[in-house]
Amino acid sequence: MPERLVVIGGVAAGMSAASRARKLRPEMEIVVLEKGREVSYGACGLPYFVAGLVARPEELVVYDAQFFREKRNIDVRLEHEAVAIEPGRKLVQALRGGSQPVDVRYDRLILATGAAPVQELPGSQRPNVFHCHTLAEAVRLRRFIEEHRPQRAVIVGSGYIGLEVAEALVRRGLEVTILERSNAVLDGIEPEIEQKLEQALATHGVKLRKGAEAKSILGANEGLASSVVYGLSGREAADLVVLSAGIRPRTELAEAAGIQLGPTGAIATDERMQTNLPGHYAAGDCAEVRHLVTGKPAYLPLGTTANKQGRVAGENAAGYAARLEGVVGTLVTRFFELELARTGLSVAQARAHGFAAAQVTVSAYTRAKYFGGKKFLLTLVWDQDSERVLGCQIAGEDGAAKRIDAAAMALHARMRIRDLLYADLSYAPPFAPVWEALLVAANEARKQGRR
Amino acid sequence: MPERLVVIGGVAAGMSAASRARKLRPEMEIVVLEKGREVSYGACGLPYFVAGLVARPEELVVYDAQFFREKRNIDVRLEHEAVAIEPGRKLVQALRGGSQPVDVRYDRLILATGAAPVQELPGSQRPNVFHCHTLAEAVRLRRFIEEHRPQRAVIVGSGYIGLEVAEALVRRGLEVTILERSNAVLDGIEPEIEQKLEQALATHGVKLRKGAEAKSILGANEGLASSVVYGLSGREAADLVVLSAGIRPRTELAEAAGIQLGPTGAIATDERMQTNLPGHYAAGDCAEVRHLVTGKPAYLPLGTTANKQGRVAGENAAGYAARLEGVVGTLVTRFFELELARTGLSVAQARAHGFAAAQVTVSAYTRAKYFGGKKFLLTLVWDQDSERVLGCQIAGEDGAAKRIDAAAMALHARMRIRDLLYADLSYAPPFAPVWEALLVAANEARKQGRR
Repeated sequence: MPERLVVIGGVAAGMSAASRARKLRPEMEIVVLEKGREVSYGACGLPYFVAGLVARPEELVVYDAQFFREKRNIDVRLEHEAVAIEPGRKLVQALRGGSQPVDVRYDRLILATGAAPVQELPGSQRPNVFHCHTLAEAVRLRRFIEEHRPQRAVIVGSGYIGLEVAEALVRRGLEVTILERSNAVLDGIEPEIEQKLEQALATHGVKLRKGAEAKSILGANEGLASSVVYGLSGREAADLVVLSAGIRPRTELAEAAGIQLGPTGAIATDERMQTNLPGHYAAGDCAEVRHLVTGKPAYLPLGTTANKQGRVAGENAAGYAARLEGVVGTLVTRFFELELARTGLSVAQARAHGFAAAQVTVSAYTRAKYFGGKKFLLTLVWDQDSERVLGCQIAGEDGAAKRIDAAAMALHARMRIRDLLYADLSYAPPFAPVWEALLVAANEARKQGRR
Repeated sequence: MPERLVVIGGVAAGMSAASRARKLRPEMEIVVLEKGREVSYGACGLPYFVAGLVARPEELVVYDAQFFREKRNIDVRLEHEAVAIEPGRKLVQALRGGSQPVDVRYDRLILATGAAPVQELPGSQRPNVFHCHTLAEAVRLRRFIEEHRPQRAVIVGSGYIGLEVAEALVRRGLEVTILERSNAVLDGIEPEIEQKLEQALATHGVKLRKGAEAKSILGANEGLASSVVYGLSGREAADLVVLSAGIRPRTELAEAAGIQLGPTGAIATDERMQTNLPGHYAAGDCAEVRHLVTGKPAYLPLGTTANKQGRVAGENAAGYAARLEGVVGTLVTRFFELELARTGLSVAQARAHGFAAAQVTVSAYTRAKYFGGKKFLLTLVWDQDSERVLGCQIAGEDGAAKRIDAAAMALHARMRIRDLLYADLSYAPPFAPVWEALLVAANEARKQGRR
């Protein structure tokens, strides 16, 4: 009997793992159990599908199940929900089509069970209440918009998904209100960057209520939600509600099987993405990853991390030795023309991790003014004791955000402020100013000196 | 008598040096001797002025002489050409307005004498033959185009300036032919990148003749050039000729004063930009800079390097201690929509420096296809012995080129291929694909393994 790898979950991490294992081990049997009806879709594109920028759901599906079956010889089983793992017998118990029990044996197992939306408010079962977390849910949301022409939307939570959905709904002509429990849009954002984002929200007519914790969703008798109750006595009318107050790792299967969770509540893994059980790996939104700036496990559920984790898990499950040293927490998003990016830690996060952190915010042009250059903001966070760079955030237009990658590389290389001062970044009038914002910020940081 | 800093040359390096010294030493006397009529113009913008993308020459002048005199208390003396330095007496001899001798004493001296075009062909004094190296010359070129409406242009040399001028002339409606002595457009370009550039030249109707060394410029009696003779028997008709076959450092003043040149023929400096004579510094296109990949002195006359060198020279001349460890040879340019960038060494250059260099070229998208993403090329060069990354080149559209900065940081940090494999670069559909080209290339490089 050939060795068999079973992967639970067929989105980013799962299909990345399965594909990598197949590439390295043509003879291995590889089974993917996916509870939904699609595999391998670009979950990060869902808001743009809702917006209509992506015309059809198929465009988000990188490869379909048939492709994986025929071209990669991966036994993709859709509508197979794993309900239990028995590590002793090396068996996954699954339900096919929601009811028919199936046992699937394995030699190696990769858990790519993903994440679930955190928030279930009273009333969230109403038919015009949505998440934007799966392709099926995004299809349902878009169909509702097109068929019912709602006018007012309330979005609960202003993380990057909330912001991307807000853009989508504004593009669909809705009046949008965001209810945010905390006092800042986007978790861990620096104040100057946050201010710029709030301006952009206002420009596009999005009403932002901060410090407004959603409590319940009310509706008329026929079942549709008609308002969201928040705070002590607030109420916001809504023809449509989107819940995007964060996600939590899906760890129930792992926990029940004796697989350990880490301090963040996600599945603990080593650099090979192996859990505490040999031969059992975890990857993607259900798993932790090491943060290279803090050196500690972190929960950073992002598509790019999921793909890396999946690839490494697949390589190891196939008997090879791959290591994911860690990530630096790089993230990019946009709200209409405003691009937002960050990497590493905010000054508050850095202090919470014990660094003597300071920050400075500068502005610089994206390119020469005569090429339409725009001023953008860059915040640099560093450790005053060691001069080490700890984080960077960017807000601006016209290609500002992708500049975060230079800062991400600096974090990977544990560079100090002095290493950035004269970094040889590319310059020509159509592309950049002579002094890139990152260099300007390093200079300002240096002026502030050590503490 | 207050201490006096004299700077010879008032473009990028010179004015950067003077400004930095002023910032640090409010009481110092600072004199800039500039032989031309402008200071501090963006020389890198000259082709775009010729193209008409920049309407007036003033737009390229960052700050004028008056600004420096009034706002920065820098004694800018235009039309003062330094003709000799006497280090013993600490004296610069200059000619004011081309004829009137003036002696200028100094305590510290910064040479920012720039570079001169390499090529003087027989016939290059004809009035429709141009360089594109100074603002005055660019103004003369543009005026000629507007007044004489030439139809056919010949550009001698296909470095990045030649390419930028080619774009400018095509935008002005001219038929353009480039004569290139060697067998490649752009020195040190990788073949795959070169091919892409040649395609773009063809698309925009630019005729490229490689292996075509220009010999002389012929003209009718009235003085205008009418053709360029090249190779053994070639002749290309021209109503306008632009010479852009490279530049050489202006070192005559330095040499005559006993200031040593380095192996590249430019002025040798240490990390503080000091020459062999204490208190005498050099910066910009007249000076060498250390290449951090080879560890050796290099001649890399670029605006961004000039500004860094100037700043460091100014800081040291002001009595502070600044160091420019070196640069990694980052360069970005474009030909119409095709963006070109590079950093570090080409595989040929790396081998010439003794590395066991290999290269790989990959293609990847700039962003999701539904956001108009385009495929671009990225070449990665590395050392097979140490796995160290040695260089990177990019050709593509839609924001491809600025991605070179992540590679430049990798060179600064002396990263290895394995350090790039899972680099945490930013991803979201409007900005990037899940696997950035740099990561894809690192993976391909790793497959090729060690030699």
